[in-house]
Amino acid sequence: MSTTNSPAALTADERDQLDALYSDFKSAHLAPLWTQREGLMPTVPNPDAVPMLWRWSSLHALAERAGGLVPVGRGGERRAIALANPGLPGTAYATPTLWAAIQYLGPGEEAPSHRHSQSAFRFVLEGEGVWTNVTGDAVAMRRGDLLLTPAMHDHEHHNTTDRPMAWIDGLDIPLVRQIDAGFFEFGPETLSTRETPARSRNERLWAHAGLTPVGAAAADTSPLMAYRWESTDSALSAQLELEDEGYPGVVEPGHAVVRYTNPATASDALSTIRTEMHRLRSGCTTTPTRTAGSSVWQVFEGDGEVQLGEHRHELQTGDLFVVPSWTQLSLSTDSGLDAFRFSDDPVFERLGLSRTDTEVTR
Amino acid sequence: MSTTNSPAALTADERDQLDALYSDFKSAHLAPLWTQREGLMPTVPNPDAVPMLWRWSSLHALAERAGGLVPVGRGGERRAIALANPGLPGTAYATPTLWAAIQYLGPGEEAPSHRHSQSAFRFVLEGEGVWTNVTGDAVAMRRGDLLLTPAMHDHEHHNTTDRPMAWIDGLDIPLVRQIDAGFFEFGPETLSTRETPARSRNERLWAHAGLTPVGAAAADTSPLMAYRWESTDSALSAQLELEDEGYPGVVEPGHAVVRYTNPATASDALSTIRTEMHRLRSGCTTTPTRTAGSSVWQVFEGDGEVQLGEHRHELQTGDLFVVPSWTQLSLSTDSGLDAFRFSDDPVFERLGLSRTDTEVTR
Amino acid sequence: MSTTNSPAALTADERDQLDALYSDFKSAHLAPLWTQREGLMPTVPNPDAVPMLWRWSSLHALAERAGGLVPVGRGGERRAIALANPGLPGTAYATPTLWAAIQYLGPGEEAPSHRHSQSAFRFVLEGEGVWTNVTGDAVAMRRGDLLLTPAMHDHEHHNTTDRPMAWIDGLDIPLVRQIDAGFFEFGPETLSTRETPARSRNERLWAHAGLTPVGAAAADTSPLMAYRWESTDSALSAQLELEDEGYPGVVEPGHAVVRYTNPATASDALSTIRTEMHRLRSGCTTTPTRTAGSSVWQVFEGDGEVQLGEHRHELQTGDLFVVPSWTQLSLSTDSGLDAFRFSDDPVFERLGLSRTDTEVTR
Amino acid sequence: MSTTNSPAALTADERDQLDALYSDFKSAHLAPLWTQREGLMPTVPNPDAVPMLWRWSSLHALAERAGGLVPVGRGGERRAIALANPGLPGTAYATPTLWAAIQYLGPGEEAPSHRHSQSAFRFVLEGEGVWTNVTGDAVAMRRGDLLLTPAMHDHEHHNTTDRPMAWIDGLDIPLVRQIDAGFFEFGPETLSTRETPARSRNERLWAHAGLTPVGAAAADTSPLMAYRWESTDSALSAQLELEDEGYPGVVEPGHAVVRYTNPATASDALSTIRTEMHRLRSGCTTTPTRTAGSSVWQVFEGDGEVQLGEHRHELQTGDLFVVPSWTQLSLSTDSGLDAFRFSDDPVFERLGLSRTDTEVTR
Repeated sequence: MSTTNSPAALTADERDQLDALYSDFKSAHLAPLWTQREGLMPTVPNPDAVPMLWRWSSLHALAERAGGLVPVGRGGERRAIALANPGLPGTAYATPTLWAAIQYLGPGEEAPSHRHSQSAFRFVLEGEGVWTNVTGDAVAMRRGDLLLTPAMHDHEHHNTTDRPMAWIDGLDIPLVRQIDAGFFEFGPETLSTRETPARSRNERLWAHAGLTPVGAAAADTSPLMAYRWESTDSALSAQLELEDEGYPGVVEPGHAVVRYTNPATASDALSTIRTEMHRLRSGCTTTPTRTAGSSVWQVFEGDGEVQLGEHRHELQTGDLFVVPSWTQLSLSTDSGLDAFRFSDDPVFERLGLSRTDTEVTR
Repeated sequence: MSTTNSPAALTADERDQLDALYSDFKSAHLAPLWTQREGLMPTVPNPDAVPMLWRWSSLHALAERAGGLVPVGRGGERRAIALANPGLPGTAYATPTLWAAIQYLGPGEEAPSHRHSQSAFRFVLEGEGVWTNVTGDAVAMRRGDLLLTPAMHDHEHHNTTDRPMAWIDGLDIPLVRQIDAGFFEFGPETLSTRETPARSRNERLWAHAGLTPVGAAAADTSPLMAYRWESTDSALSAQLELEDEGYPGVVEPGHAVVRYTNPATASDALSTIRTEMHRLRSGCTTTPTRTAGSSVWQVFEGDGEVQLGEHRHELQTGDLFVVPSWTQLSLSTDSGLDAFRFSDDPVFERLGLSRTDTEVTR
Repeated sequence: MSTTNSPAALTADERDQLDALYSDFKSAHLAPLWTQREGLMPTVPNPDAVPMLWRWSSLHALAERAGGLVPVGRGGERRAIALANPGLPGTAYATPTLWAAIQYLGPGEEAPSHRHSQSAFRFVLEGEGVWTNVTGDAVAMRRGDLLLTPAMHDHEHHNTTDRPMAWIDGLDIPLVRQIDAGFFEFGPETLSTRETPARSRNERLWAHAGLTPVGAAAADTSPLMAYRWESTDSALSAQLELEDEGYPGVVEPGHAVVRYTNPATASDALSTIRTEMHRLRSGCTTTPTRTAGSSVWQVFEGDGEVQLGEHRHELQTGDLFVVPSWTQLSLSTDSGLDAFRFSDDPVFERLGLSRTDTEVTR
Repeated sequence: MSTTNSPAALTADERDQLDALYSDFKSAHLAPLWTQREGLMPTVPNPDAVPMLWRWSSLHALAERAGGLVPVGRGGERRAIALANPGLPGTAYATPTLWAAIQYLGPGEEAPSHRHSQSAFRFVLEGEGVWTNVTGDAVAMRRGDLLLTPAMHDHEHHNTTDRPMAWIDGLDIPLVRQIDAGFFEFGPETLSTRETPARSRNERLWAHAGLTPVGAAAADTSPLMAYRWESTDSALSAQLELEDEGYPGVVEPGHAVVRYTNPATASDALSTIRTEMHRLRSGCTTTPTRTAGSSVWQVFEGDGEVQLGEHRHELQTGDLFVVPSWTQLSLSTDSGLDAFRFSDDPVFERLGLSRTDTEVTR
């Protein structure tokens, strides 16, 4: 599609008039559509963000170095190191909507209390011993757990052990920054609680499948702050066992998925971020799929390969990769693979912008 | 409110004309509002159904006698004996919307497969060894469990043991009959499965708090057919423990409640029937409350007393009682009480007819 | 389906025991399912209500006689004469859920203020000059208009002319009475207003298609109390004209339908009653259809025929007929027909009980 | 807020290590949170977009010059000149979510057919004679009308007169571009219709307040493509008249507002853009308000002043101004003012990010 509202053959005088017009547009803070329509409104999503993979070993080593050099404190708030998509230079964004970081907390360290309109979660690849206090309710962090801090919930972290711990943080910082929706408040300087219960109060009230506590206050955001690995693991195993027995449950052959949901509404656990755990049986290759919207994945256990648009990467435990919008994705594994995924799907669904294209060949 | 559209002083002639008019109304299949407005539109609900209590011991003895005399089979379908509210003579209704019965299945007996537009559940006071097959998925029935058979789901029961088992059935038969919404189909003559797993397939897919199986087919009705006592008990205990620790969770002091909900929507487990388990701490008396809508309760464990309108009853394990609309209710217990409740609240809520009045004095 | 849990061959002794058992059931206020399963749970809806037609001329004549003999006043509240379905003896119900009546108000008469949890509407076949004051807002009643008085809205009527006026009232009295959801309050003894504006305040705020008044208080029930004939007529004409031009809009060939909806939610105008106006082009016969749920129709203009289950009736302006649940219905007209319909569809939809069967032959 | 995870006093060696760490972060495509937390997560929205006003007279003059020099055609698609917020350099965005432009179509010109996932509307300040064909349905454009082209609806414009016409276009281009949700398809090269009806088919079906066409196909997006000025004007007048009479309706004294809504759902006319018309009575000053989210206004008629954060501008017919997120806004007028507003409020509401602060003093 070449000639766009542009005049085919101009006289010198017309060309001068046109130059003057464009110059006057600029002075008047105006911009013509016809010279940039393709960039503004591409045929299919044409993301600036690029597909990209980060190795956990490198990430963790850098986080460890930061642990020795950079204190955690008020202002910076967290020792978190974010994936900075090279296609989005000058930002610290994994994708246009998602922020993803490794957070590292040394022995006995505390990350101070704050709250914000951004939705956040933590997902734990390894380690334990840190508690996240969410509105004063101490939530243990352990391998395989997903922990939420929904919008405007005070939260703080503290390491109760003599060993460091690292995990990933996911937030909607880019989306909220882009549309100017961010509110942030510092909390008290001292921990709201030093309790270290195995099970938080919100779990005791809400982590009972199909049982709603009638006396619990209603809220717009999820009342459940922790989704434990034992439960996730068991739910994924069940799907694959049912498949073995000939019953439905998996999303496609060899591919089990659970979505973390708000037990008070059955919708996504966070209003702007979808969170899921995927399990691929050994020998499984997922159907190549393109989706409007972006996602970040972390290998939780096992190894395999990912085909990410034109690129192919080997995957090992802890590796993180980014899937920009409308980039074709397929995972495969010889020996079995568990992978955590988070995405901006709820944004696309709530705004009527979802689209998926599943095809065998790209 | 005495004089209603009725003429204060009529001449004999006018009286004759009026008599003729009323007679002509009748012949024309018409009825004046003004002579029956108060009955049709009372100031507050004026139910025909009366408050009533049935003793489990009597019920069970009668069911046992039926077990020896009446076979279970096609046509009658179930050996179920329903609470027949004396205020609704000629019916087998507990309330105008709810049907409640004890069902009894002898050693090795089978209740044949059928499905219907009525929503149904079973709640198990005692015993075990019966499996309900719901659309071919074998669901164990054990003490304290709530088992669903949502509208138009094939179901059948069979006793795999050499001992009889009894439980309660709850359905919306009166409502569905009243508004002429009933459809019923007989199923195959032989059991769909003789499997006796401890955990049904639907539980394996869905009984994971906050974890939605992405590959499971969407449905309007609950995909989870069993709510196990261990989970219910633990959820209720947690509420009372949180109260002890000074945190929210109970609906009022000493009174814990969980509602059984559809994990795919977070709304009531059945679209026309609310199901809940209540736990009263020893020494607790619940606030006297009147609610538009009716309910049936069964004491699951413990003893206490119920104030039901003007009536007061002692309560023992297994006793069933009926609360007609707008009848004041208060429970109390010295030693602690667990009670199962089902009601037509979802009907009232979905139709915009809910009303509750909580007051200390009647 | 003959033999139902009943013992095939009983000894005399067993028969005695069975008799004793049934007798004991009765004493204990219990009823076995197996002897009445078919009645309680029919294969398809088996309504007690029967198809029935009332002639407007007869109705109106009786209402007129009542006008001369029975005053309107507090207690009786309204000079309304209800369709009493012969299949529901002892009631004044048109169907198990719907109440339908002709209301008659003489020159200068007033029907006193009250409010109730029942939802109500009026539909005007002919005449004018009465205003219904809804929460103090005077709503003119004119030919072809639908006027609402949603649940718990104070309302009163007064005839400002020297001629009587009659119209039909529709309410959910049977449903609300049956489930014991009724609350009723008398209002003040004097009219809230004697204003007679052509257009009520609620219309001035809300009767603008696609334009929501941002400053209007939110409410659960419809804020719009009047749907004017000019608008309804124009909407129906448009559908048929579009059909003539080859475009979609009608529900089937020659059959236009508009549903009266709540402009604040786009759902049914009343939460328990669906209201619609149907227009059949001359020569049209509607597809025979059975629906779970009941309805009442009034011919607004034109003539034709209705096939109502086994019965066939000629139709003239003003005639009312009742369609019990699952009764096959088809309308036809040589010269064109407008008909108002109201039904309990919202109840069925909200409770998950809807079912429709459209077939050419019954 | 001073010390943020930064080391208070570093030795030279530590400083070297830190420099090396930051350099290694960069090489690894990582970015620390602690050095940029304030920028990423400000206390309140800190938009890059700035408050700004464009004069209609200047805009129109430039559009007219473009009309003489730049043809309309395939590729560029439209002769639209967008407001380019100086705070968002290098873009053609009015705000981070909204695109606003003047579109100019000369005598007899045609803008070719296309469709896209972006939602769009046109609002007409002056003129007439252009028809927008939306999926083949010809929609007249006249002064004061709002015309929709919801996502993925084919549309094209053509000027049937010998005079040029100009109007404003509003789209969610920035949001859709930012989150990579854009799909775009060219349509046929020739007009789908040359009909010029006064009323489009969608209006004939849907523009009847409270009347839903039962036979119309259900859709996720608004079925009504045109909101006519006569109706908007009348709705606004009614609110002010009701205020005069002492009744509710206005949002605050002297300030009437209608929101354009989807008649099939009662929610915003477009899923990502709110559209409203405001009318200020003479002498009115609106309460200074800050809202999370951005908006664009155009004065439709009258004059007045706007206080936009620190800036104050006189307003005349046609002027456009931009309100970035959390910028305080107040309008005032001596002689009365009508103003059209569009905003990203639906995005904020659907994602749980809404916040408003109304206060007398900034």
